[in-house]
Amino acid sequence: MHKVPVGILGASGYTGRELLGLVARHPAMELAFASARAREGERTVIAGRTVAFTGAEAAPLGEAALVFSALPHGESAPWVARARAAGAKVVDLSADLRPGAAAAPGARAAGAVPYGLTEIARPALRNAAVVANPGCYATAALLSLAPLAQRGLIAPGGTITINAASGVTGAGFTPRADLLFAEVAEDFRAYALGNGHRHVAEMRAVIASMGADADLVFTPHLLPVARGILATITVPVTALPADVLAPWREQYAGERFIEIAEEAPALRDVVRRNVLRLTARPVAGVRQPMLQVVAAIDNLVKGAAGQAMQNANLALGLDESLGLPS
Amino acid sequence: MHKVPVGILGASGYTGRELLGLVARHPAMELAFASARAREGERTVIAGRTVAFTGAEAAPLGEAALVFSALPHGESAPWVARARAAGAKVVDLSADLRPGAAAAPGARAAGAVPYGLTEIARPALRNAAVVANPGCYATAALLSLAPLAQRGLIAPGGTITINAASGVTGAGFTPRADLLFAEVAEDFRAYALGNGHRHVAEMRAVIASMGADADLVFTPHLLPVARGILATITVPVTALPADVLAPWREQYAGERFIEIAEEAPALRDVVRRNVLRLTARPVAGVRQPMLQVVAAIDNLVKGAAGQAMQNANLALGLDESLGLPS
Amino acid sequence: MHKVPVGILGASGYTGRELLGLVARHPAMELAFASARAREGERTVIAGRTVAFTGAEAAPLGEAALVFSALPHGESAPWVARARAAGAKVVDLSADLRPGAAAAPGARAAGAVPYGLTEIARPALRNAAVVANPGCYATAALLSLAPLAQRGLIAPGGTITINAASGVTGAGFTPRADLLFAEVAEDFRAYALGNGHRHVAEMRAVIASMGADADLVFTPHLLPVARGILATITVPVTALPADVLAPWREQYAGERFIEIAEEAPALRDVVRRNVLRLTARPVAGVRQPMLQVVAAIDNLVKGAAGQAMQNANLALGLDESLGLPS
Amino acid sequence: MHKVPVGILGASGYTGRELLGLVARHPAMELAFASARAREGERTVIAGRTVAFTGAEAAPLGEAALVFSALPHGESAPWVARARAAGAKVVDLSADLRPGAAAAPGARAAGAVPYGLTEIARPALRNAAVVANPGCYATAALLSLAPLAQRGLIAPGGTITINAASGVTGAGFTPRADLLFAEVAEDFRAYALGNGHRHVAEMRAVIASMGADADLVFTPHLLPVARGILATITVPVTALPADVLAPWREQYAGERFIEIAEEAPALRDVVRRNVLRLTARPVAGVRQPMLQVVAAIDNLVKGAAGQAMQNANLALGLDESLGLPS
Repeated sequence: MHKVPVGILGASGYTGRELLGLVARHPAMELAFASARAREGERTVIAGRTVAFTGAEAAPLGEAALVFSALPHGESAPWVARARAAGAKVVDLSADLRPGAAAAPGARAAGAVPYGLTEIARPALRNAAVVANPGCYATAALLSLAPLAQRGLIAPGGTITINAASGVTGAGFTPRADLLFAEVAEDFRAYALGNGHRHVAEMRAVIASMGADADLVFTPHLLPVARGILATITVPVTALPADVLAPWREQYAGERFIEIAEEAPALRDVVRRNVLRLTARPVAGVRQPMLQVVAAIDNLVKGAAGQAMQNANLALGLDESLGLPS
Repeated sequence: MHKVPVGILGASGYTGRELLGLVARHPAMELAFASARAREGERTVIAGRTVAFTGAEAAPLGEAALVFSALPHGESAPWVARARAAGAKVVDLSADLRPGAAAAPGARAAGAVPYGLTEIARPALRNAAVVANPGCYATAALLSLAPLAQRGLIAPGGTITINAASGVTGAGFTPRADLLFAEVAEDFRAYALGNGHRHVAEMRAVIASMGADADLVFTPHLLPVARGILATITVPVTALPADVLAPWREQYAGERFIEIAEEAPALRDVVRRNVLRLTARPVAGVRQPMLQVVAAIDNLVKGAAGQAMQNANLALGLDESLGLPS
Repeated sequence: MHKVPVGILGASGYTGRELLGLVARHPAMELAFASARAREGERTVIAGRTVAFTGAEAAPLGEAALVFSALPHGESAPWVARARAAGAKVVDLSADLRPGAAAAPGARAAGAVPYGLTEIARPALRNAAVVANPGCYATAALLSLAPLAQRGLIAPGGTITINAASGVTGAGFTPRADLLFAEVAEDFRAYALGNGHRHVAEMRAVIASMGADADLVFTPHLLPVARGILATITVPVTALPADVLAPWREQYAGERFIEIAEEAPALRDVVRRNVLRLTARPVAGVRQPMLQVVAAIDNLVKGAAGQAMQNANLALGLDESLGLPS
Repeated sequence: MHKVPVGILGASGYTGRELLGLVARHPAMELAFASARAREGERTVIAGRTVAFTGAEAAPLGEAALVFSALPHGESAPWVARARAAGAKVVDLSADLRPGAAAAPGARAAGAVPYGLTEIARPALRNAAVVANPGCYATAALLSLAPLAQRGLIAPGGTITINAASGVTGAGFTPRADLLFAEVAEDFRAYALGNGHRHVAEMRAVIASMGADADLVFTPHLLPVARGILATITVPVTALPADVLAPWREQYAGERFIEIAEEAPALRDVVRRNVLRLTARPVAGVRQPMLQVVAAIDNLVKGAAGQAMQNANLALGLDESLGLPS
């Protein structure tokens, strides 16, 4: 079978390595190149195959039908343009091209780019030239809220409270003293208080585009686990659905990568899997009708590389689930 | 120096052991007895002293000037009555006598009992005969909210969202398969969704008694750490204070066991210490003025045994901070 | 394709659940029954299929071509006999039929049973009626030592020192207070000091059967991880091999489930995989020539269910690696 | 009370911070300076006091009666000489001046320096000008072996096997990708195989100086915990003592910082305490009489800063246990 050549820019971080693994096991893709500034010239073994890291400048962009960019925020957009100029499609995992992002250098050149929240935006992603892959927290929050937003169930003028906790791979593979084992173990903390996180603008823009008129308060937390995001969301609604899970069951009927559960999901239900698993519950004892939605994803899979692979498959006209064992 | 004899009912769980340690190191207390049904007849060494566990029935209640009850919810209230009848004061760490609690057997007999949120209710606790020691989550939430509630700063009719995560000692020392190391490590989950937790009624009753007219949504989570609670609270306010930390700084001026910080607190700031540490921040980009408050405590110390010791000291007319190195 | 029906006795513990997962994904097996005393009548979902637990008494032994017994030590042997009487082959994961085991009730009835150290005993396992599956620690130690023992390289009269550390799933799924998260996290301890562990006799008998005349000192340790065993072995040798890894490279040439590495293996190299990964190194600065061998396995896979599946495949005349993605 | 001024070189690493804490709480010491290259000009709060970090060049060595050097191996010896020239006594926590160390720059100038294994070398440490503080692994191993070595109980020509596992603070506070939480959690590995660790020469030299003629095999391991070392030692002996713990009980009678236990010690018995806790057991089923010794220490306390404080107290003529609550 002919395999589609794909390249990875920024292949040595946690997301890049996850992409390497997915490409190595993909039945219809083969690796054209893998760039990693810090490891240029080194080799690694992924799924039994040896991969040699190049520098980004040396990456043969034109040999890839599609390029995944896992470069840092602010550095990625120019590489999207270079890969496009070389004829490759691009799935950009940085924040540079996402809705609500501060204009990154080169971002304007990319023009309007579909936002790759796959289960919501699928038609725009099929055969797309460039896809802006959603942030990990945004994926958890927006897939949870979309069924309410699109049904007009979110109370106008209300405030949605999103508390989310992520495993430390969400902070990347960069050596930082505050991410050493002895600093993170037995600890837990909130950060980016007061709506200070980059993903707030992304979530707000997307929620608004779905027709909801609501404010957001988003608080991320750092968990002493390697992988996984749990988002606990409180949302004021116009009315409580008779069947509380109905909005999600309708919206996501037939979706392979979304699981609707009666019980609260836990990280262990989703780690190393390309799924979002959620439940919802009415809130007792409050005057304003409210729902609580709890969703779990693996931040590196459904929150990054796995969803990127769904989008790459769509962009290339392949079966969306190829290479993604649920 | 003459030492006050104190007893502990339910001394072999996590909270009971913490109490044993505090009593053993207390300069003005000595242990009269320690009961532990499951370990009756066994001995343990705490802070260099050997302690023999009795059954509760055999505990010489009358020999203690004060009894700490760390018995399970629903079992404690009758023992409070027995200890009172034997002439001992009681600090009850169960939920039985707390505001908002469903009537426990024997609870009525205790009559109106002061709620031991020490920094808020100190006058009622001094020389009290019985104290209902607050729940761990409730301590973190209520000490965070009291300065706003008592200043009329909580927006009437608003909804306060309290997300809290606790280390597993909060679930007690009972052998349960779901609390085994291999089940908890690398996991994170919410529980008691939809305002299903026992502490909701406790928080609601106390917040209302402080004059706030607000709804609560409380979601507890289970953390893969041994100790600590982090509470992340979003509260709609009538107006943002010019100095965001001023309400807490005023309320808690001179308090040894409350720390107001500019930066977000983390579990490691408070573990094994009898303090609550908090910060607050205005929420950006929302129409309704809102504050975010983040507070950390050790669930077994300020959230249980440490606060119980503050209350015991007050009940006995001792210096509140005795035996509690901050 | 016709699938071979297999049953599992003791299916709700860690090993039993691992077996359930392997059977569910096996291309040539289907589940005939799964017994679990504590969960009789309950259902679970494994790999997308619903499994109903029976009691062992109700298990239709005769409907299975092969039965895996993951029953506790001392309870398993009679069930091996019952399964045999019903016409099923058996892979017994308990210690009851292993060499060196104290005679368990019913063990004698099983007669001489091949010891399922697959890569060493393969001919005896092919089409076997009953297989005694090795212990997890014994698997790590014996696969490490066999190439030296079988080549006469172990110094006669010497003492082999085996230090091994296991994740807590090795202690089973039974609720025990000493295995609670808060007891195991941030801790590490040795147990069964002085050659007190059950696996010592098993290792000693097998090593002797390979022709080595050496004493063993085995010390197990409990690690704060869910899965994995690392064995660090010091063995006096008759002479240092010119190529230190040659004995293992020769012995295990072509083996899919053994990895010989230049670098020291770590748990993360092997977790959730059916492999043993090892390295060896000469010891510097000692008068007696010595090798150090370090080996890693997943205690639940290569150390239990995975090796059991290799053995089951062989017993049934199937390809040994079926259902075991390396 | 007059307090002795002490300085700390290298005060921002894990050991340096532990020293800062001990000095801050010491009843008879006050901090003269704290140097930390990477944090020059920054401030920190330790035990309620603000500490400003200087560069080492700016440290007022002459103002200190004693200097602790927690500088890296290879950099420390010249600073020992400078501190001596300025009139300060020195406790050097680096390897530079230890027995068996490769000659470090400046080490020769220090001349013969007593090795600060406090309970063994106390007379040489009292009023010493310079002390070479033992390595963490060496402390655990040598305090375990000294009672056997000094009684002639170690079998001549035998091989002592020392397996030890350390929490990650043993690797220091330097940001390294391999020490990130997500790399260490759920993992365990051996390193420095084949007697490759720096502490081997240190242990060998000290053991020989105690009169033992034995080889050593030492294998360190990296544990997924923050603190603690557990050493599991197998030692061939001339004969098994009738009372197996007698050698240690005799040697360490009256020692405040050594605990002899019947049961195997665990990390949690010793973490954050300045103690070594050990047990010993005869090894069953071996022809050569052997003992197994298992010892636990906190690598940062008894294995570094705590023992350094014992030595500093002795060097200054103070009570050895001052500032070291056992």
